[in-house]
Amino acid sequence: MALTHDQKTNNALVHQQDREFVFHSWSVQGALNPLVIQSGQGCVLWDYDGKEYLDFSSQLVNTNIGHQHPKVVAAIKAQADELTTIAPSTANHMRNQAAQRIVALAPAGFSKVFFTNAGADANENAIRMARLYTGRDKVLSSYRSYHGNTGAAIVATGDARRVPNEYARGHVHFFSPYLYRSEFWAADEAQECARALHHLRRVIESEGPDGIAAILLESVPGTAGIMVPPPGYMQGVRALCDEFGIIMIMDEVMSGFGRTGKWFALEHYDVVPDLITFAKGVNSGYVPAGGVIISTALSDYFNDKMFPGGLTYSGHPLAMASIVATIDAMKEEGMVEHAAQMGELLGAGLRALADKHALIGEVRGMGVFWALELVANRASRAKLPAAAMNTIKAACMARGLLPFIADNRIHVVPPCNVSAEEVARALAIYDDVLAKVAVEYTE
Amino acid sequence: MALTHDQKTNNALVHQQDREFVFHSWSVQGALNPLVIQSGQGCVLWDYDGKEYLDFSSQLVNTNIGHQHPKVVAAIKAQADELTTIAPSTANHMRNQAAQRIVALAPAGFSKVFFTNAGADANENAIRMARLYTGRDKVLSSYRSYHGNTGAAIVATGDARRVPNEYARGHVHFFSPYLYRSEFWAADEAQECARALHHLRRVIESEGPDGIAAILLESVPGTAGIMVPPPGYMQGVRALCDEFGIIMIMDEVMSGFGRTGKWFALEHYDVVPDLITFAKGVNSGYVPAGGVIISTALSDYFNDKMFPGGLTYSGHPLAMASIVATIDAMKEEGMVEHAAQMGELLGAGLRALADKHALIGEVRGMGVFWALELVANRASRAKLPAAAMNTIKAACMARGLLPFIADNRIHVVPPCNVSAEEVARALAIYDDVLAKVAVEYTE
Repeated sequence: MALTHDQKTNNALVHQQDREFVFHSWSVQGALNPLVIQSGQGCVLWDYDGKEYLDFSSQLVNTNIGHQHPKVVAAIKAQADELTTIAPSTANHMRNQAAQRIVALAPAGFSKVFFTNAGADANENAIRMARLYTGRDKVLSSYRSYHGNTGAAIVATGDARRVPNEYARGHVHFFSPYLYRSEFWAADEAQECARALHHLRRVIESEGPDGIAAILLESVPGTAGIMVPPPGYMQGVRALCDEFGIIMIMDEVMSGFGRTGKWFALEHYDVVPDLITFAKGVNSGYVPAGGVIISTALSDYFNDKMFPGGLTYSGHPLAMASIVATIDAMKEEGMVEHAAQMGELLGAGLRALADKHALIGEVRGMGVFWALELVANRASRAKLPAAAMNTIKAACMARGLLPFIADNRIHVVPPCNVSAEEVARALAIYDDVLAKVAVEYTE
Repeated sequence: MALTHDQKTNNALVHQQDREFVFHSWSVQGALNPLVIQSGQGCVLWDYDGKEYLDFSSQLVNTNIGHQHPKVVAAIKAQADELTTIAPSTANHMRNQAAQRIVALAPAGFSKVFFTNAGADANENAIRMARLYTGRDKVLSSYRSYHGNTGAAIVATGDARRVPNEYARGHVHFFSPYLYRSEFWAADEAQECARALHHLRRVIESEGPDGIAAILLESVPGTAGIMVPPPGYMQGVRALCDEFGIIMIMDEVMSGFGRTGKWFALEHYDVVPDLITFAKGVNSGYVPAGGVIISTALSDYFNDKMFPGGLTYSGHPLAMASIVATIDAMKEEGMVEHAAQMGELLGAGLRALADKHALIGEVRGMGVFWALELVANRASRAKLPAAAMNTIKAACMARGLLPFIADNRIHVVPPCNVSAEEVARALAIYDDVLAKVAVEYTE
């Protein structure tokens, strides 16, 4: 557990050096005040002063197995001794083991895995496969979505981060279901579902079905707000894809590998897409990795045709070893089933908070994947302002909880192996913080 | 050195499982016959039967420090014990150390590093920074170039892999210097340089200088053929960028970190760009990583403006630890200077082969970054056909040498710590193979 370089460091020095040398994602650089973390274990992180944080963010919703899981750490160390890196053109034992395990977790009808470095290039390659297979150009995705930050992935993205990054073509956006802020004047979930499907059909017809290669959808839109699709929606999208010969890509980058209490969120819908993209939970990000799980039809298509995509670190041995160990440990420890059980506790606990705090406009989610939508006014559903959200974040941190804040929401997204005790502790902190903030911000 | 999973494996089983479960980069999947590798050390790799290969490919020209360097392996293991992963929004000790070392290696005037997963997203983010900083749209890059396979990176790419992937806009391509197959009817290097700069000026003027955000160029075009720019070319590009307010991005993904016998290839030209992208050699790909080194002007620009780019694994601790250990080990072992010395041996040896074998049309390169351009006819410069290149590849492999073959070229690209003895051994194998192939293929 020792630092190998410049051992004598501390919070202040790490913070100061960060500000001097490191350029950060998604930020105004001059406004940054990054949290210093030294290490962690399970759901807990600590800094150099020994201050602990209960991690209910899973960082960027990726550490599904918790921090520093000993079996995964051991596997990385063993693979580091064996072979850290090798070209993707070779055959590699650990890559085979990872692919085999992932295919076994996917629905029937999937046969191969193409590995990437992360979720963005997983979506890039899924789009590439769909375009080549169909000979079509356009890709439809939802306005409220996030699919990665590379050139084509970012324009497939639906949220505001797309706007300054629109340098690819053929991407069309539609509205997916979100009853709490319905785009379809819907009164209930069944109506929201039916109208969202009607809207999608109209977009397909208006864009020209013969030109549409793929519909790309997160199985549960994640960063956009954890909007679990209403019953029937995903089946309806599948039916539209079948009707018009469109490839269905389900993005399981955030929702996969236990996050919703299933290996893949798609298991909740009884829907089989043509391509599944993954990253994050597959190895909890212990080594950068992602990929595409390819249905047999698409995989076979490229048996006699060139696939014009690739990357230096595709199927990287160190990443592959961490995937194998992660999947094996999650199975051995029943972690996906545990996440489903914790989901019952979290759901009940968060709904109890909503009964108590008028700030909570809606509670939605499943497994260890929940959102609290915070509002200044329950009737108007006006979003709680940014200043209040900043207060909530600071108050959580002061109480030793690392929250995930997005827009006017708290995403309650601990690791899959969070304990009932940790859930109770976090709920008590949210309760306390919301009570304090309510005094100041309720309209 | 033990496998942790399914220890009992062998070449045949690894090959068979690969074909069953793994989808490969840049390939017709049905035509694959991947090489099985178990492990390696320095410039040597071996399979499960103990068959050894001298690696003169550095895989995808990334293992600059050789395979399984003990100091880098130890650093990865130590960091795995400390903290494998953390969100990029935090401050991290090892990330600071990596950024500090990289900034120290860059020319004066660079101040921060933005870390990515690899070279493609490094170029993506450099393009993003240049567009935002200039408020302009277009990006110019060379036809003979490779900048990565994500949506915008691939259309910045100049080679044929771009064609099926053109789904971004504003990318314009020009011809860069390549005297052996001049696009400018040039008779010598000085003329090639002057005419290439005139051509670039005409493209800038014709596209509209006020709309051009960046010129993106590999410091030495790598996969495209290791075309070392003639004296004055890079200075000329810098002057054009200055004249028209265009950001100069130098892609050092393949050419950086010792490959050319300098830390960065740009040191050969006495030119300072605005942004430098890197990956590969920064940590020899032991953990996926890349990034952008940002000049102070561009870095400061984002002090009070949002940078709309990011990724989950930016500044990944395990990757950062491997960067720190790689740079430190390369310095301690004088590996960059050694690469320059080996370049003298390689250059002399390859030119001696050219004196002997009419198949060699041109020898070019520096450091451990050389290309043999093979021709069926020296007068016409007709490229040696693919069948002959396949024969060369197989003959090298049979003799225990792993070559890097691209189009009609052998890229001679061993690790920076290749020994004089290994250079001599490889030269003897190339000699033998070229003699055998010459009988069959010379016109």
